[in-house]
Amino acid sequence: MAHPYSGLLTDLYELTMAAGYVQTGFQARATFELFVREMPPHRSYLVAAGLEQALDYLEQVHFAADEIAYLRRHPAFAHVGEAFFRYLEQFRFTGDVWAMPEGSIFFPSEPLLRVTAPIAEAQILETYLLATLNYQSLVATKAARIVTAACGRRVIDFGTRRAHGIEAGVLAARAAYIGGCDGTSNVAAGHRFGIPTYGTQAHSWVMAYDREEEAFRRFQEVFPEHAILLVDTYDVRAAVEKIIASGRKPRGIRLDSGDLVADSQWARQRLRQVGWEDVQIFASGNLDEYRIAALLERGAEIDGFGVGTALVTSEDAPSLGVVYKLVEVEAEEERRLAAKFSDAKTTYPGRKQVFRFRDARGEFYQDLIALEGEQPAGGEPLLVPVMRGGRRLHPSSPLVELRERCADARQHLPAALRQLEAAGTYPVRYSQQLEALQQAVRQRYRGGVEEKQQKAAPTRRG
Amino acid sequence: MAHPYSGLLTDLYELTMAAGYVQTGFQARATFELFVREMPPHRSYLVAAGLEQALDYLEQVHFAADEIAYLRRHPAFAHVGEAFFRYLEQFRFTGDVWAMPEGSIFFPSEPLLRVTAPIAEAQILETYLLATLNYQSLVATKAARIVTAACGRRVIDFGTRRAHGIEAGVLAARAAYIGGCDGTSNVAAGHRFGIPTYGTQAHSWVMAYDREEEAFRRFQEVFPEHAILLVDTYDVRAAVEKIIASGRKPRGIRLDSGDLVADSQWARQRLRQVGWEDVQIFASGNLDEYRIAALLERGAEIDGFGVGTALVTSEDAPSLGVVYKLVEVEAEEERRLAAKFSDAKTTYPGRKQVFRFRDARGEFYQDLIALEGEQPAGGEPLLVPVMRGGRRLHPSSPLVELRERCADARQHLPAALRQLEAAGTYPVRYSQQLEALQQAVRQRYRGGVEEKQQKAAPTRRG
Repeated sequence: MAHPYSGLLTDLYELTMAAGYVQTGFQARATFELFVREMPPHRSYLVAAGLEQALDYLEQVHFAADEIAYLRRHPAFAHVGEAFFRYLEQFRFTGDVWAMPEGSIFFPSEPLLRVTAPIAEAQILETYLLATLNYQSLVATKAARIVTAACGRRVIDFGTRRAHGIEAGVLAARAAYIGGCDGTSNVAAGHRFGIPTYGTQAHSWVMAYDREEEAFRRFQEVFPEHAILLVDTYDVRAAVEKIIASGRKPRGIRLDSGDLVADSQWARQRLRQVGWEDVQIFASGNLDEYRIAALLERGAEIDGFGVGTALVTSEDAPSLGVVYKLVEVEAEEERRLAAKFSDAKTTYPGRKQVFRFRDARGEFYQDLIALEGEQPAGGEPLLVPVMRGGRRLHPSSPLVELRERCADARQHLPAALRQLEAAGTYPVRYSQQLEALQQAVRQRYRGGVEEKQQKAAPTRRG
Repeated sequence: MAHPYSGLLTDLYELTMAAGYVQTGFQARATFELFVREMPPHRSYLVAAGLEQALDYLEQVHFAADEIAYLRRHPAFAHVGEAFFRYLEQFRFTGDVWAMPEGSIFFPSEPLLRVTAPIAEAQILETYLLATLNYQSLVATKAARIVTAACGRRVIDFGTRRAHGIEAGVLAARAAYIGGCDGTSNVAAGHRFGIPTYGTQAHSWVMAYDREEEAFRRFQEVFPEHAILLVDTYDVRAAVEKIIASGRKPRGIRLDSGDLVADSQWARQRLRQVGWEDVQIFASGNLDEYRIAALLERGAEIDGFGVGTALVTSEDAPSLGVVYKLVEVEAEEERRLAAKFSDAKTTYPGRKQVFRFRDARGEFYQDLIALEGEQPAGGEPLLVPVMRGGRRLHPSSPLVELRERCADARQHLPAALRQLEAAGTYPVRYSQQLEALQQAVRQRYRGGVEEKQQKAAPTRRG
């Protein structure tokens, strides 16, 4: 298995381009911005997550000797000179990074992360940064929707088994917690990130005993305070009656199939009849924000939800269209602004900042994407410096703070965007300076006037 | 970061159940089977993948001291005695595993993997096994569909950046190769698994130079044999003209946006006009099996496809409904068969084998799920022993063999199932013995006659 900070955790073209930059002596500092092109279906806002893992990688990325040996043998590098392999031996990330803190709410086109570094370095890191911020932001966003639908009831991530590999399960647990879930079933995530972990029992426990009541009794003996008994292995109502007949009050019961509305209402009534008002009713089984909203609307008596597949795969929108685009190159005492003009994928040039505007109650009403040096009155800048010269500027924030940031931001979203099916789109505008600059850069290419570099007057170093 | 073989890479309830089994002295050997409940939308067959990583984990899983210390502090284990923590200190997988080899084609309800082990061990490993086989099988299946649509043209996995984290990207590359892709852009996957890796250049390379022709020339100087030039940064046709005017023949060009049919036809014609018949035309940009089929039907002149997001997220079906079900418990010299009868999630009891039947040309026409001891005439058993007493029985097969197994199996699928939208469902039946056994076990619970254990006459030890 490769080491977790391997420089090979990238696309081949990042390395061939890096070899090209090294070999041709192109040593410019470049700025890349990472953003989402379009809002995925059904979403009206996005939640930033994954920065911590991205920074961990940036601080520790390197190429081991056997990894460089592998590249030396690779046919693509047959004509690449020794200088590139020596470059890889010394490779460390030395750049500067600005980013939105995790738990921030953001929108398409807004830079979520900005890297300024020698161009070969910044290029090699593209793939890792995209994969890391893409996935955790995807899950944090889905979690925020599910938590909204649950209207204050507990939501626990149960998704590891359906995640895209075990490591995705661990990362999903982290992102789901930032997005608002109350905990996870994933024990490694609990150990690694300090997330509260929860669990009940599986059908296999019940099936392993000859009698269901014996399975319940045994479990309650071992877990006198924490037993949440799974009641749908054979027959939900018969199982609840067995628990009541035993006289041993469990902490809760879990329904995993069947008619969750009717069964939960029936169970609540029976539990109340015997004075067990505080026995909690949990539900799981192919739940998502839509099914949770429908269950609650129909009067289901459920205190908490276990959500799995839909959460960790972001089932209805399993990817974000994240991109990492070159916006500026500084070479030979000059700065040149870069933008791409192929149809429908226009990129704005220059280093940017995102400003958020709030009304008197603190509710956001507009974001402005501007050039770094601009200072629009009343705008709160969202990108903050997180790394300089390849080193973190701040210690990591506790995860619970990131989760609170997200909860607070969700509270201050326009009400129409907090609904599962948003009415309207949040306004994100570009500054006039940025629009003018984009026109100027576009002219340069469209007009065929490519000879002359354009000085970047409106920007300053970050 | 947790070590990659951590026993904590599981759901909490697996560990609480294991604690329950240890504490109550329930030391039965149990058999669990892993299978997919239902065919995902648009699929007509599934491709098995991920076994190698599952076996790596089974051979090396253990609990580090700090992991056990974490569990000791966990509130769920407050009343669990010392015996369980001592059990974890010694924990190793000691069981037997049967599985379908990677690259096999399989169908819902068919056990893909069968574990027989002390019940607590088998339970703890559930989550890892599900996550691992779920994801790689998902991607191998999607890859097989995409490769089918490409009708012999090259298909390269470009998906890492949109995978669910970087490790998912590495595993996706492996699974995609098994499913029929020709290679990947993921360099770590190339290094770790020996998969061929490919890459071209990004828009950022072109944008980093002031003139597009300079960007092309520089790249070709470094990669005289391998340069595939990206031509859609500004204007596809102008870029192709610049390359032709330079007189330096590239290995290929890549189109990443725009009208891929019109632009590829135009480019082919221009390249032919200058005698560059062997310059290859690659296409990428939000491709999947449907878009590839449509491009080729409309006459696109494309030699190879780079497929990303849709492949690595299995976009139209981002999870498989994999489950891991207890089918048998052996305790105190007896064997008891287990099945679950809650509505719509019926499990068949007993250790099973899957038999495949082929016609004279080798085409499959039916699978039979039977009890392990049955030997239906003409049926080829699909599950083979892969691990005994916690050790692998065979060295790993080269990945290329797994890929060939899949290609061969796809060739022998009924023609109707090889289409992107399958006409019909492949017949998978249960043996009469298995149906009879299920009825008997069902009677035992449904009739309320739960007192008596039923001996497992029809099965024998595997």
